Amino acid sequence: MPDSDVVSLLRAIARTGRGARGWTRPPWSATVRAAESVVIDVAAESGLVASHDAAGNLWLIDRAAPPTGLIATGSHLDTVPDGGAFDGALGVATALDAVARLRAAAIPGRERLAVIVFADEEGWRFGTPIFGSRVLTGAYGPDVLDRLDADGVRLGDACPPDPFAASGGHRRLAAFVEVHVEQGLALTPAGVPLGVATGLAARSRLAFVCDGEANHAGTTPMTGRRDALVSAARLVLAADESARAEPGAVATVGTLVVEPGGSNVVPGRATGTLDVRAPAPEARDAVIAAITAACPGVVIRPLAADDGVRFDLAIRRALHTAAGADAIDLASYAGHDAGVLAAAGIPAGMLFVRSPNGISHDPLETASDDDCRRAVAVLTAALAELVSPDRGVESAAGAVDA
Amino acid sequence: MPDSDVVSLLRAIARTGRGARGWTRPPWSATVRAAESVVIDVAAESGLVASHDAAGNLWLIDRAAPPTGLIATGSHLDTVPDGGAFDGALGVATALDAVARLRAAAIPGRERLAVIVFADEEGWRFGTPIFGSRVLTGAYGPDVLDRLDADGVRLGDACPPDPFAASGGHRRLAAFVEVHVEQGLALTPAGVPLGVATGLAARSRLAFVCDGEANHAGTTPMTGRRDALVSAARLVLAADESARAEPGAVATVGTLVVEPGGSNVVPGRATGTLDVRAPAPEARDAVIAAITAACPGVVIRPLAADDGVRFDLAIRRALHTAAGADAIDLASYAGHDAGVLAAAGIPAGMLFVRSPNGISHDPLETASDDDCRRAVAVLTAALAELVSPDRGVESAAGAVDA
Repeated sequence: MPDSDVVSLLRAIARTGRGARGWTRPPWSATVRAAESVVIDVAAESGLVASHDAAGNLWLIDRAAPPTGLIATGSHLDTVPDGGAFDGALGVATALDAVARLRAAAIPGRERLAVIVFADEEGWRFGTPIFGSRVLTGAYGPDVLDRLDADGVRLGDACPPDPFAASGGHRRLAAFVEVHVEQGLALTPAGVPLGVATGLAARSRLAFVCDGEANHAGTTPMTGRRDALVSAARLVLAADESARAEPGAVATVGTLVVEPGGSNVVPGRATGTLDVRAPAPEARDAVIAAITAACPGVVIRPLAADDGVRFDLAIRRALHTAAGADAIDLASYAGHDAGVLAAAGIPAGMLFVRSPNGISHDPLETASDDDCRRAVAVLTAALAELVSPDRGVESAAGAVDA
Repeated sequence: MPDSDVVSLLRAIARTGRGARGWTRPPWSATVRAAESVVIDVAAESGLVASHDAAGNLWLIDRAAPPTGLIATGSHLDTVPDGGAFDGALGVATALDAVARLRAAAIPGRERLAVIVFADEEGWRFGTPIFGSRVLTGAYGPDVLDRLDADGVRLGDACPPDPFAASGGHRRLAAFVEVHVEQGLALTPAGVPLGVATGLAARSRLAFVCDGEANHAGTTPMTGRRDALVSAARLVLAADESARAEPGAVATVGTLVVEPGGSNVVPGRATGTLDVRAPAPEARDAVIAAITAACPGVVIRPLAADDGVRFDLAIRRALHTAAGADAIDLASYAGHDAGVLAAAGIPAGMLFVRSPNGISHDPLETASDDDCRRAVAVLTAALAELVSPDRGVESAAGAVDA
């Protein structure tokens, strides 16, 4: 059995779900359960009791934990297909290491410390990102259970039988801190190992349809063509250019399907998705407006939007105080359970650990042992500060930075 | 029984293979045999004898036809699935009408006139376009018999038992003229019913691969991205612009696959096909060179190339003389049996009949009765000229326009 040191825990977790090309721990799978078993065994050594809530989130808490006021930390253990060994796992391993240290030190209030492993954070199988925390906070409703995976399996038949029985479970938390491997490449150029998240970016996911006219690729002159892929190519470049023109914004066409899809047929239809994120909702909307204006004939339809969140100021200060010169502020452009909780009014924060190559959702994703241990030290100190009876959860909860 | 008038013949042929969505006469099928029966019966009325060669091509010739020196016309009766009533059928119907008229007029040399219905011209079932003429000329070899259809049926088990016994059969021909419904929309704007093909366009089919780096769509800043779809979009627009800059050229990206294909993942790879056609090989190569130059990081690999053919100048002149102001020159951008024969050294030519909507391989494909009858008149006059003892086949054969 591994000990609770973050590096040995990461190695133990990385022995689950490892394939030829990367790590694959689908939600609701035996491989994600195997990773949870590693964590449950190590947590038991620290006297933490494991239980899954109705949504499949794994809670590791003290036998004497109060019903509310928990100071929690954690992340997730599911991965994208052929993903890396750090996304999610690092947040769980640092959480367990930090909480084990504070429990071993017998600090006052330690019974309020908890580790949470959220279910189906990646959401790729059913299109349900950040499932576990969203079910808790009510950001997802029961209609989500009808979503199908690529094989036609219904989410409601793959997840636990009554996940919405867990609704409101987030109210047990007085604070939540999530450690995550940096996604992007800001810390290495800044020469620091850690980043304290200021908030989660505003984001929109949109679908677009370019309609043209399918016709013979040989006998249809250029002047008579309505090539749907040419329209889609203009949209792809407009997205790229519009995002580059807006500081901090990103825009991505990640999927594109061309019909009818014959090498000798002018495309009649091209459909795709557009993902736009920016530090603030106004900047995100400006990028979407610029793309729309550049593509007059294209139907662009919003699928989902999130105006982002600002993280709790007291938690950010606790992390900065613990990190000193080792951390800078960072915005986050991905969805995280910490963001879902923050949006639901739970004081939350995130600590990013330097990614030397900026690669994410890929087996090349990495963080150094030293940086992982630095993150544990900072998380430990911040949790100690948050759980301390001098500060209390009330002051942390009251310091939301609007 | 229909008479040999082109319009009544077309109607009789259109009663075979008609489905709910269009006409479907697959190669080697009972429906294509039913269409051939219509033609065989009408040809018999004109004294033409029907026989299939070993490759399945149907020859309708005079009982006293010489072994070589035939002046032939025709096309095909197979169709794409849910195709139209004119592609192929129009060439057979005009051929039979014209030859019947010349035989009825008892012109000298009429025993040299022949109608040919080529087998499996569309080639969609086994991926063997222009099969019948290619077997005759040796452009296909026996390895083609191992190709499978979508159900795993081998071409060699679907077609006649020994098709390559027909090899060299094209040497019987001193000339071949094919009438075809226009594919494209050049004649209507020009205000003429007919087009005389100058040749078949040079064509290339290429594959391209844009490599990038798959990464998180939220957390990867625009400056750090290598988005494969952005590269592919530049190629799509470069293809469009390069073809527009070269008179008569067309370029099409008809297929494009984006990997990994997640809405929140920067594309790491985009692969597609590029189809480029132009009136001459040099123009086609110039378009490919312009696209390649505009996309320095993209790997573009040729899959297949055909330098096209120039049709026989004497046949083109005979068609123009007969048509007068009713015809303009046209390049053809699709494959045809006449092109295969021309590439094998047989003097050949084509006459296109105005398509009011430019739609091809679709039940909406059409040509007016008047235009079909004009085509018969022109074909009749041109065949009379080609078969005339004053001109003879030698002069036609010697007038290839290099």
